[in-house]
Amino acid sequence: MKVVVIGSGAAGLTAASNIRKYDEKAEITVITREEYLAYSPCAIPYVLGGEIKSFESIIMHEPEDYKKKGINVVREAEVYDIVSHENKVEYRVKEEEKEINKSVQYDYLIIATGGAPFIPPVEGINLKGVFKVRTIEDGMKIRKWAENIKNAVVIGAGAIGLETGYELKKFGLDVVVTEMLPQIFPRSLDPDMALIVQKYLEGQGVKIVLGNPVGKILGEEKVETAVVGDETLKTDMVIMATGVRPQVKLADKAGCKLGRWAVEVNEKMQTSIPNIYAVGDCVEVVDAITGQNTLSPFGTTAVRQGKVAAKNIAGKDSKFNPVLNSSVSQIGAVEIGAVGLTETAANLNGIEVVTGKIKALTRARYYPGCKPIYIKLICNSEGRILGCQIIAKETVAERVDTMAIAISKGVTCNELIGMEFSYAPPLSMVVDPFVQAAEDACEKLKNNTIE
Amino acid sequence: MKVVVIGSGAAGLTAASNIRKYDEKAEITVITREEYLAYSPCAIPYVLGGEIKSFESIIMHEPEDYKKKGINVVREAEVYDIVSHENKVEYRVKEEEKEINKSVQYDYLIIATGGAPFIPPVEGINLKGVFKVRTIEDGMKIRKWAENIKNAVVIGAGAIGLETGYELKKFGLDVVVTEMLPQIFPRSLDPDMALIVQKYLEGQGVKIVLGNPVGKILGEEKVETAVVGDETLKTDMVIMATGVRPQVKLADKAGCKLGRWAVEVNEKMQTSIPNIYAVGDCVEVVDAITGQNTLSPFGTTAVRQGKVAAKNIAGKDSKFNPVLNSSVSQIGAVEIGAVGLTETAANLNGIEVVTGKIKALTRARYYPGCKPIYIKLICNSEGRILGCQIIAKETVAERVDTMAIAISKGVTCNELIGMEFSYAPPLSMVVDPFVQAAEDACEKLKNNTIE
Repeated sequence: MKVVVIGSGAAGLTAASNIRKYDEKAEITVITREEYLAYSPCAIPYVLGGEIKSFESIIMHEPEDYKKKGINVVREAEVYDIVSHENKVEYRVKEEEKEINKSVQYDYLIIATGGAPFIPPVEGINLKGVFKVRTIEDGMKIRKWAENIKNAVVIGAGAIGLETGYELKKFGLDVVVTEMLPQIFPRSLDPDMALIVQKYLEGQGVKIVLGNPVGKILGEEKVETAVVGDETLKTDMVIMATGVRPQVKLADKAGCKLGRWAVEVNEKMQTSIPNIYAVGDCVEVVDAITGQNTLSPFGTTAVRQGKVAAKNIAGKDSKFNPVLNSSVSQIGAVEIGAVGLTETAANLNGIEVVTGKIKALTRARYYPGCKPIYIKLICNSEGRILGCQIIAKETVAERVDTMAIAISKGVTCNELIGMEFSYAPPLSMVVDPFVQAAEDACEKLKNNTIE
Repeated sequence: MKVVVIGSGAAGLTAASNIRKYDEKAEITVITREEYLAYSPCAIPYVLGGEIKSFESIIMHEPEDYKKKGINVVREAEVYDIVSHENKVEYRVKEEEKEINKSVQYDYLIIATGGAPFIPPVEGINLKGVFKVRTIEDGMKIRKWAENIKNAVVIGAGAIGLETGYELKKFGLDVVVTEMLPQIFPRSLDPDMALIVQKYLEGQGVKIVLGNPVGKILGEEKVETAVVGDETLKTDMVIMATGVRPQVKLADKAGCKLGRWAVEVNEKMQTSIPNIYAVGDCVEVVDAITGQNTLSPFGTTAVRQGKVAAKNIAGKDSKFNPVLNSSVSQIGAVEIGAVGLTETAANLNGIEVVTGKIKALTRARYYPGCKPIYIKLICNSEGRILGCQIIAKETVAERVDTMAIAISKGVTCNELIGMEFSYAPPLSMVVDPFVQAAEDACEKLKNNTIE
């Protein structure tokens, strides 16, 4: 069996490794544009701020690791066509300073072309000192540029923008993060929760400008100012953290059906062409709450999809479930997590919801080191939990995972109150913050019924 | 409505406060032996070691707090009879140096008499320098005695014994913890997991002696040696952490039916006498996995039961669910958690199980501060998760809670692999340790099928 994988992100490499796990004899080829393999793009901001010592340390595997597994990795190669009726991938690669066209046959093809940064078409985008944050090379360039400057403007206040902004501030720059929408974390948090994080960031000296898109970037040879709404921000660097778009061009060329957002796949991660699978940021998936198609550009989704595709190709039955899009981010000392539907998204989708909201503590109140925790539960009119947002200085990722299981198993607020939460004074409250939030929601649900 | 509560632990006080929440007019009386109210007994070891500054700080509420809520608390009173056919509680209380017998009528009675330390009937148990660890007074006595001595022996290597042993070592004593059974944490951990904690404790200088009960305690006026198996341990103090027994005498006197272990209650927390409820450490409950009656001597159980009893008495329908007995403990830098069935208990109950076991990390491996985490999943032959044990230096309590929900909702290992776990390098691994453990279990299940 010949398997070709296009792309060396988490989805592509997981798929390749898992095919090897199930099939010792498969001929596996990974073709990638990149020079560095198997690194963690989510870690780039933390190298900038010095939390992680070097870019080298976020590379999880070297090409040799794959060679040992019998996986042939072709790096710095550009796939320019997929000829699906001939089961053939055509690519261009440099050998001894020359560009050579090559092709490879497949029985199964896995498209894992990922996402590319979306760069809004504004004036000055090509000036020196304008960067994106996607690859390890981007990170290296940003770090180098940051060494001799004073100011940075980050466009986009999602996780990557805020993490990068905070870390550059920590590195010593004066930082402004701007966002087109009127709140930070516009996709994962509701405005009330976003405000808690915003205040923390402002307290740390990161300036936030909301409700305006970047207008233009000005400068002679290099960036000098960024115009955002009414504000003209003097700056030595602009970082575009304006989101990522699925890269679907190759899948389209191959004749794979595209959906509203990205490559369409079934629950086996199979495209409309039976021997072509697609995984990772380039595909669209089903939202577990709304039932509508959506994107899920997360490393964990990529890994799960890579495993599912590999299993199916290896003849084992495996399905990828609809997503809740669990996410977590660390900004300075604060952890921000979300899973499922926000109140904002519920309103947009016409889903009537009630929320439970509390400020509690991560440990017994008398225990030194206990920290405030903010939880917002979103549930439907029957009390079923549809989403959750959590902000605290510890334990957020694990709490998001707890809610991911609760939401996917249809747990109600009332049921949650009756559930067991472990307790020891150094580690938790005797009445868990989730239970307190669920009790708040139940109280409101009860009041709703009386109305 | 007149409600009398006997006992001022978490169960009794939660019941009293919740009745007030639902019924502004109820006459509520709490009768307790204790002087101090509403403190956290689980916190006592941490005061001994100095983690928590004072015993005063673990008192959550003062008598005045209850008075303000219109709850009459009678302290330092001994209930000596319940005359259930007259709906009357008889108690003895000291007033102006005199013991006076009093009685109080009830419409509903809540028995929350808790548990009493089980002290094995060995020679020397009444010598000076022998202590139990149950009440805040016990804690105060231990701390005072510990000030001018060098050695301590703790009998019993459950959570309380080990926490106390470690904290006394931290306080500056030479400490030996002894256990009758051949492992520490004999109820919540399997031997393989217990050994990880044992090695940590030994590394911290706490001596552990296993597989022998305490034989006798010797000394002239005060403790001088403890004989445990072949070993004669020279010591200035002996702490009996040999478990807790439900206090059922009053319930029995009232005519409430007793079960195998403690007071029998239905899922409303009602005893065999309809207007008498019982909650907390004095009742027995149903084990969610085996379906058999068991004990659940945990603060969180007590709180949930107190709420359930209060709701039912207030005319609202509420049920207490079968238990998984989630528990977590902090010993030095290590957190130890468990939920559901152990492999040992499965074997005792004739339940065939497969385990998934891994050592992973709490954060991305390149992220500074990531720590080892040990997870053991216990699942039945269909892959359904029945229990989990976790040891790490962070995030254990929240992970136990995640598994509590997964187990109570019947999640299988295979299902767990497909579930979402949030990821950010500073906070988690891209393939969550739970997923790694579940994959290990699935691998074994698959192999079992082939056999």
